[in-house]
Amino acid sequence: MQEKILKHNEVGVFALGGLGEVGKNMYCVEYQDELIIIDSGILFPDDHLLGIDYVINDYSYLVENQDKITALVITHGHEDHIGAIPYLLRQVKIPKIYANGLAIGLIKNKLEEHRDLKPTLIEYDEDERLKLGKLSVSFFRTNHSIPDSFGIVVHTPEGKIVHTGDFKFDFTPTGPDADYQKMAGLGQAGVLLLLSDSTNAELGAFTKSEAGVSETIKDIFTKIEGRAIVATFASNIHRVQQIVEASIATKRKIAVFGRSMIRTVEVGTEMGYIKAPEGTFIDSRSINKYAANKITIVCTGSQGEPLAALSRIAAGTHRQIKVSNGDTVIFSSSPIPGNQESVGKTINQLFRRGANVIINSPFADTHTSGHAGQEEMKLMLKLIKPKYFMPIHGEYRMLKIHSQIGIMTGVKKGNEFVMDNGDVLAVTRRSARIAGKVKAGNIYIDGKSIGDIGSIVIRDRKLLSEDGLLSAIVTINESTNEVINKPVIISRGFIYMREHTELTSELSSLVKESVSKKIKDMKKINVSLLKREITKLLSDIIYEKTERSPMIMPVVMIVE
Amino acid sequence: MQEKILKHNEVGVFALGGLGEVGKNMYCVEYQDELIIIDSGILFPDDHLLGIDYVINDYSYLVENQDKITALVITHGHEDHIGAIPYLLRQVKIPKIYANGLAIGLIKNKLEEHRDLKPTLIEYDEDERLKLGKLSVSFFRTNHSIPDSFGIVVHTPEGKIVHTGDFKFDFTPTGPDADYQKMAGLGQAGVLLLLSDSTNAELGAFTKSEAGVSETIKDIFTKIEGRAIVATFASNIHRVQQIVEASIATKRKIAVFGRSMIRTVEVGTEMGYIKAPEGTFIDSRSINKYAANKITIVCTGSQGEPLAALSRIAAGTHRQIKVSNGDTVIFSSSPIPGNQESVGKTINQLFRRGANVIINSPFADTHTSGHAGQEEMKLMLKLIKPKYFMPIHGEYRMLKIHSQIGIMTGVKKGNEFVMDNGDVLAVTRRSARIAGKVKAGNIYIDGKSIGDIGSIVIRDRKLLSEDGLLSAIVTINESTNEVINKPVIISRGFIYMREHTELTSELSSLVKESVSKKIKDMKKINVSLLKREITKLLSDIIYEKTERSPMIMPVVMIVE
Repeated sequence: MQEKILKHNEVGVFALGGLGEVGKNMYCVEYQDELIIIDSGILFPDDHLLGIDYVINDYSYLVENQDKITALVITHGHEDHIGAIPYLLRQVKIPKIYANGLAIGLIKNKLEEHRDLKPTLIEYDEDERLKLGKLSVSFFRTNHSIPDSFGIVVHTPEGKIVHTGDFKFDFTPTGPDADYQKMAGLGQAGVLLLLSDSTNAELGAFTKSEAGVSETIKDIFTKIEGRAIVATFASNIHRVQQIVEASIATKRKIAVFGRSMIRTVEVGTEMGYIKAPEGTFIDSRSINKYAANKITIVCTGSQGEPLAALSRIAAGTHRQIKVSNGDTVIFSSSPIPGNQESVGKTINQLFRRGANVIINSPFADTHTSGHAGQEEMKLMLKLIKPKYFMPIHGEYRMLKIHSQIGIMTGVKKGNEFVMDNGDVLAVTRRSARIAGKVKAGNIYIDGKSIGDIGSIVIRDRKLLSEDGLLSAIVTINESTNEVINKPVIISRGFIYMREHTELTSELSSLVKESVSKKIKDMKKINVSLLKREITKLLSDIIYEKTERSPMIMPVVMIVE
Repeated sequence: MQEKILKHNEVGVFALGGLGEVGKNMYCVEYQDELIIIDSGILFPDDHLLGIDYVINDYSYLVENQDKITALVITHGHEDHIGAIPYLLRQVKIPKIYANGLAIGLIKNKLEEHRDLKPTLIEYDEDERLKLGKLSVSFFRTNHSIPDSFGIVVHTPEGKIVHTGDFKFDFTPTGPDADYQKMAGLGQAGVLLLLSDSTNAELGAFTKSEAGVSETIKDIFTKIEGRAIVATFASNIHRVQQIVEASIATKRKIAVFGRSMIRTVEVGTEMGYIKAPEGTFIDSRSINKYAANKITIVCTGSQGEPLAALSRIAAGTHRQIKVSNGDTVIFSSSPIPGNQESVGKTINQLFRRGANVIINSPFADTHTSGHAGQEEMKLMLKLIKPKYFMPIHGEYRMLKIHSQIGIMTGVKKGNEFVMDNGDVLAVTRRSARIAGKVKAGNIYIDGKSIGDIGSIVIRDRKLLSEDGLLSAIVTINESTNEVINKPVIISRGFIYMREHTELTSELSSLVKESVSKKIKDMKKINVSLLKREITKLLSDIIYEKTERSPMIMPVVMIVE
C-alpha cells in the first residue's frame, strides 16, 4: 500500500466507505491541516456475512488525524448515512456535527441510547455558508426518498467540490422542489470536482415521479372493498403522507403498526411532514370497531423481515390483525436484491389467507426509487458541469457505468476517477491524480461487541452452514499412553446421529485405532499432531462415504 | 390428513411436486387401476436449505401403487422435469418412459452414470396416440426455452385432461412453431380439465420473441471491437444457435467453455439443433491464434455459479482466458431470484478487469423467458377452453393469480382449483371436487445419500451459520464423583478463541464449579441432566456478555 502523500496545495478527496458498495457512506475532504467528513453510515450485510448485524468503517485514519477534523456534515437521515455516528463518536473526537431537519431528529433519537455521548449537533440552514477554517461549506436541496436531503458544496482555495448526496429529480415531488437554480449556478460559476450518487446507474431513463405513485395509490384505494393494508419503508415519510391523503379521499381511518412506522408517524406529524385532520389516525386497538372499508393499515414489513408487522400478519401470528377475504395488501416498495425470496414468501402467505396482493409493477406504480436513473445522472452532470468527476455510492459496476455517463455528457476522458475506498484523489485547479491510499476497511458489528468478529469466524460460519460439524473427542491416559474408552463422536448439522449409530461407532473405532497406534511410542503426547491426524482421517472417510465435508473439530484430552 | 377416496368413475389428478414451488414437477392422472405420471424433476433449493444439493419428491404413494403405473411421460428435457428419474427408478418400477427428441438424449446421458438402471425408454411421435390401458395419451408442440417441448393430452373415459408442460407463445421462434391448430382443435372438441404453467403469472403482457433476442445479439456483435464472450443457460440450445449465427455474420470463430456447454454443443450439433459450417467451432486451446475481433466465446456461468467458466474468468483464475480491455461480456440470461448478488459480483469483477458488460435490459434484449406471461396464459385458455382449471408449476401466489386469469377468460367461478402437492382433484364429465390427499413431501439430497438429511439437521445448520458453536467438554471421574482437570471450552464460528483466552478460562471455571456441585451427591451420574445444566449455564452467560446465541454442544465424559 502506497501511503497518501499530498502536496501543499492539493485537496485530498477520499472515501472511507461507499465505493464498491451501497452502504456505510463516509467521504472526506482534506486540505492542509483541515478535514471535513461527509456522512457516517452503516452497511446492512448480505448473506455471506452470516449472523453479522451490520458493518461500519475502519476509522483508523480519522483517529490518527483527529486534530485536523473540523466537522461532520450530514446530507440526509438514512441509516447508510447517519447510522454509524455513535460508533464514530466513541473513537474519534468530532468538534461539530451539522445536519438539517429530519436528519437532526433522527440523530437525536439515535443518541438517546448513548446518553454518555454529547456531541455538538447544529442545524444548518440550506442557504447559509459554514466557515470551517480555510474551507467552507454550503448546501443545495435535492429530491430523495426521505425529506430534507441535501447536496453539499465544499469551497476550497482550489475550487468547489460538489457532493450530491443521494438524489433523484422529481418534477412533481410530494415535498419541496430540488433547487435547480443553485445547481445550475454552481455549474455556471465553475465546479472543480463532482461526487455523484451511482446507485441506479444500471437503470435507464428517469425514475417515476412520486406524483404518479400518489395517483396509483388513490386509484387502488377507491377499488378496495375491504381493508387497505399498505407496507412501505418507515423512513419514507412522503410516502406515508400519500397514503394518508388516499385514506382521507376514501374516508378511511388509519391505524399504524410496527415500531419504526409508529415512530415515523409521530416524528413526521410533529415536524409537519405528515398532515392529517384530527381523528384521522386511530388507536390501533380500536380497528375492529370500524367497517373494513373504513380502515387503512400502514405497517412495516415491505421487505419480508421476519419480525415486522406485515410478516406476522401474513404468518397469522399478529395479535390484532387477521387477514380475511376482501382485504387488499399493497406493497409500496420494491424488494432489495437478496430479499426477493422473503417477500415472495410473505405474498404467498397473504394469498393463502384470502387477501388480494398488489405489488409495484409496470401496471401499478405503487413505488418509485429514491435514486437517479441514467437520464437524471446526465441532468446533474449538465447542471454542475464539473471538470473532474468521481462517481460515488455504488458497487464497482455502477461507478463504472456512471463514469461512462460522465464522459458521454462532457467530462473530458481521463478526468473521471473510478476509485476504491481509501484511494486518495488529489486535486488542484489544474490537476487531478491518485495520490496513494489511506487505511479503509470493514468492522463487523454482531450483538454488543465491535470488531471481534474476524474473517476466520465468518469463514467458519460459512463452512458450518454448508455441511455442519463433526467432533471427535479422544481421552488419553498420559501415564500408560493409552486411549481411554471409545472416542466420542458427536455432530451438529451434519447428519442426525441418532439415526446413524453404525457410522458413529465405526468412526469411533477408527479414531481409537489410529490414535492408539500413534501414541504408543510417543515420549510426550503431541496434541497438535494428533489433532491433525484425526482431522485428516475423518475428512477422508466421511468424504468417501457421503461426499460431504463437515468441519472436523478434534479434541484431545489428557488425563493422568 | 383425509385420505384420497375416488369414486369408481372419477379421474384423480394430483401433483407429487410442482404446486407451491418452481421445481420437482411430477403430476399424476389416476383412473381406476391405472396411473400415468407426467415428468419427474428435481428442485434446486434456496438458501434456507443450507448445503443441500437438491430436493426430490416423496414417492411413497407411487411405491404403494406401483402396480397401477402404466407409464412416465416426459414433457421436455429440463432438470426440473427429468432430473429425478434415476431416483424414481431406484424406488418405483416404471414399465415405460416416453419422451421426445432432446429429452431422450438428455435422459440417456443422465442414465449413463446409473448403468444398473435399464428402463424401457421410448421416443414418442408428436402425432401419435399412445394407448395405455383405458387411458391414452397424445401430444402438441409448444414453444419453450429448450427444443422439443410438448403439451400432453390424457384421454380418459370422462374427458380430456390437458397438461401444457412449460410453454410460452413465440410467433417468431428460433425452432419450429407451436401447434396452434392442435390446441384450437382440442378446445373445439371439448376439454374437461386444463393444467397450465403459472411461472410468469406475475408478469404482464407477452414474453419477448427469440427473434428480437437474435437481432439484439447480432447488433451487439457488430459493435464489439474485441472478443465477444457470451454466457447463457447450457440447456438453451436455440440461444446457442443464435450466438452461432451472430458469430458467422461477423466472421468470428467460436470457442466453447464449461462442461455442460460443451455437452450442449455436442448434442445440439449431433441432433441438428445447432447448424454451423465446418470450421466455425475451434479448439478452445487455440483461441489465442486469432485476432480478438475474430473470436466468440460461449460459456457457462450466467448465474454467477462460483465454479462455472465465466465466474473463473471474472475472478482471474481461468487457465486460458484472461479478460482485457476491449472484450465485451454479454449475459444472455436473467438472474434467477436468489442469484442477483453472485451475478452482480461477477459483473463487478469483469468491469474491474476492463471488460465491457452488457446485461439483459429494456435497452438490450439479450434474453427472454421461456414461460408465458399473462397474455399468453389467456391465449392458452382461449384455445383450450377447459371446463375445469388447475394452475400448476408455480408458487402459491403465481397459481392464485393464474386462477384469476382463468376466470377472467371464461372458466366458471368455482371451477378453478388452486391446490397443494398431494391434494387430489376428482373429476368426471359433470363434476370436480377435492377428494382428500395422498402423501407428498420433500426428500433432501446432499452428496451421495438420499433422504438422510432431516429438518433437524437443516435447523442446526441455520443456527450454526448465524452464531456458530461453543462446546464444553467435561470429564468426570465416576469413582470419586469429581470433575477431572478444567473443562475444555472450544468453539467454531462464534468468536476466535485464541483472542479471548480470558473468556474461555472464565467459562471453563464456571462449568467446572456448576458440574462439581451437581454431581457431589449423585449416586449415578445423570449425563442428560448435566448436559441440560451446562447448556443453560453457558447460553445465559454468553448472551449476557455478547448478545449472541451460539449453539451449545455439551459433552460429558465418564472415566473410572
